[in-house]
Amino acid sequence: MGKKNMVIAQSGGPSSAINASIAGAISRAMAAQEIGKVYGAVNGMQGFLDRKLIDISEQIKSSDDLDMLVHTPAQALGSSRYKIPKGEEGNAVFEQILTILKEYDIGYFFYNGGNDSMDTVCRVANYFKERGEDIKAIGIPKTIDNDLAETDHTPGFGSAARYVAASIAEVYLDTIVYPLPAVTVMEVMGRNAGWLTAASALARDTGVPAPHLIYLPELPFDPNDFIERACGLIKKEGQIVVAVSEGVKYADGTYLADTGAEEDMFGHKTLGGVAAILEALLKEKSGIEGLKSRAIMFSTLQRAAAHYASETDLKESYQCGWRAVEAALAGDSGIMITIQRESDDPYLVRYEKGALDNIANAERTVPLEWISDGGTNVSQEMMEYLRPLVRGESSETIVGGLPRFFRFDWTKTVEPEQR
Amino acid sequence: MGKKNMVIAQSGGPSSAINASIAGAISRAMAAQEIGKVYGAVNGMQGFLDRKLIDISEQIKSSDDLDMLVHTPAQALGSSRYKIPKGEEGNAVFEQILTILKEYDIGYFFYNGGNDSMDTVCRVANYFKERGEDIKAIGIPKTIDNDLAETDHTPGFGSAARYVAASIAEVYLDTIVYPLPAVTVMEVMGRNAGWLTAASALARDTGVPAPHLIYLPELPFDPNDFIERACGLIKKEGQIVVAVSEGVKYADGTYLADTGAEEDMFGHKTLGGVAAILEALLKEKSGIEGLKSRAIMFSTLQRAAAHYASETDLKESYQCGWRAVEAALAGDSGIMITIQRESDDPYLVRYEKGALDNIANAERTVPLEWISDGGTNVSQEMMEYLRPLVRGESSETIVGGLPRFFRFDWTKTVEPEQR
Repeated sequence: MGKKNMVIAQSGGPSSAINASIAGAISRAMAAQEIGKVYGAVNGMQGFLDRKLIDISEQIKSSDDLDMLVHTPAQALGSSRYKIPKGEEGNAVFEQILTILKEYDIGYFFYNGGNDSMDTVCRVANYFKERGEDIKAIGIPKTIDNDLAETDHTPGFGSAARYVAASIAEVYLDTIVYPLPAVTVMEVMGRNAGWLTAASALARDTGVPAPHLIYLPELPFDPNDFIERACGLIKKEGQIVVAVSEGVKYADGTYLADTGAEEDMFGHKTLGGVAAILEALLKEKSGIEGLKSRAIMFSTLQRAAAHYASETDLKESYQCGWRAVEAALAGDSGIMITIQRESDDPYLVRYEKGALDNIANAERTVPLEWISDGGTNVSQEMMEYLRPLVRGESSETIVGGLPRFFRFDWTKTVEPEQR
Repeated sequence: MGKKNMVIAQSGGPSSAINASIAGAISRAMAAQEIGKVYGAVNGMQGFLDRKLIDISEQIKSSDDLDMLVHTPAQALGSSRYKIPKGEEGNAVFEQILTILKEYDIGYFFYNGGNDSMDTVCRVANYFKERGEDIKAIGIPKTIDNDLAETDHTPGFGSAARYVAASIAEVYLDTIVYPLPAVTVMEVMGRNAGWLTAASALARDTGVPAPHLIYLPELPFDPNDFIERACGLIKKEGQIVVAVSEGVKYADGTYLADTGAEEDMFGHKTLGGVAAILEALLKEKSGIEGLKSRAIMFSTLQRAAAHYASETDLKESYQCGWRAVEAALAGDSGIMITIQRESDDPYLVRYEKGALDNIANAERTVPLEWISDGGTNVSQEMMEYLRPLVRGESSETIVGGLPRFFRFDWTKTVEPEQR
């Protein structure tokens, strides 16, 4: 095919490394003879269908802009939770996608996101193939949950892991200053996959014993066992930190956060999911006099903390974007760039292409053999897996002590070029 | 006086810059001919009374140790909330303090903390003077609340301010990715003084409009005015971020967090103070369909985040410790080292000595003329005051992407030397 334009969009939940991927893709695309304009769709597939296309080639004015983009957290092109419907209705949407792509003379479609996003781009790619359209559709992985199939790990995970681990170490030091029995429960994101909660174990590499207990959603949570272990540890250590995944479930499969959430004064579910429940459980049942307890939710801080991103993560995220464009130029479609680990130490990876058909509806959870101590800790293998991913200090642009971010102007949407 | 030993202790709430002060004091003391052993009391005055004294000169083995100590959050010597009783009982405690000081041949007593700690060291210094004892007692300021009298600002504040400002900017970028009406309420520490919440305004220096509303405890909170302003802003901007101090009160003087806290399933007050209340208020009263809302408490993260400390803050904190020892050697007692600002730009400070009698029971809140827009914003003067305090990037020791901390061995307590 001759010279064609490209479009890139982002979807799913934010991460602090997601924009490194579009920076990589933009950088490679701008250097490609085969690619004309680089469009960005604002707010994912929904925005694309609404023709909210901006001209990225015009808005990125320098390599400083690109560098700032790398270090800017959360989708710089906005996100969307839109899913293409199944069946007849879905076909109409695919038609509409094709119409817009042709209007804008686009031959390359890149979608940057997690599981749902990979499902979307998979279906789009398959539709193009069925229709015999020569348009390449490629997925660029992103998720702090680290739960995409076919890849060793996902861009975004290492940065969130670094922030969570360092913060837990810091909070532990804060917890021990008073010689009083205390427990701090820290809630980490991850509804079905416990990777990020497992990464809390890296806090120990800073020389602290926290977290003392780690609960992942992969194994059922036993309240009595938790109380017994926590009380034993508090009596022995004085102060302990517990890391818990938001998605932990009882043996019957119900989420702790579902059963425990109380309604507030206005009839809404209260804030504080599972950490508050574990904290309350200990306060109620420990029998330890004067027990100080605290629940901390990392909330969106953990996925937005660009200031403590892992440079390893940012570099890999950039490479995934760069290589997605290379793959498209080489004629690939219906694939996602994956990261394959060659070795832990020295840490070496190579980039491959995974079939979206195998990725779209798969979810990669923590192998049970990497969970240890009766479901309250992680194994040495997990530590070795995690360590390289948090390496390297973020080199964000700092002015006056504070970061500077790159922001696209989402209102500057463009019409198709006259041909 | 001849060669005497010294003791240093820490008290009050943690900060990420507090150990820079003891590093400064230790460093100056180790170079002083007049000072013999450098003792640390573990767990503040309570620990001192229990003779929990460690030999700092023995535990600090290199300048690397000292540098790591500077970048380690939360009292490395532990803390205490102990207050010396008034009257007869207090006199017995002062006798006990004197006994222990003489046992250990200590001529210099340094206490590093906030308002309550300055009250303690003030009373100790006055007792020595009354008794004609030649023991110098000096205060070293610390508090993220920035509410100590007689000083332009307090060590610990700038680092917490830097973390809060950058995190709010990051969370704002996370909040805007979906094109849906949304509010994120972020709760900042500061029960009576709103300095740290005011520092959230620095987030705007990164190029984002957040926080859109800022509520300090210095002015009464009007729920109706809040709802009206927030709804107007959400309708105009789409997504907004509100920064609120944990200590905001209604016009009748009651804390929002006191009136709003519901009991959880075990009969305890639920987590989530004022941020959850503001969030619930908007959900209930805004009438905005599909409003997404979230409450985030910075909790202890904001005072422990050594990874994003301000180097300006760490340097000043170090200087306060260093100069406390210099002052003691010069014969001062009953004073606290203060920071006086010469100019904002270039930022210049000088260090002075403030009488503890004037500091001990004073609390410095935000001047009302620095609060603007009907109690929902801060003035330009406040911005200029704040800006220099967050400058400079932390240079913590990083190994494998994660910080290394210095920790004293609190169990290695020592007996007095044989004389």
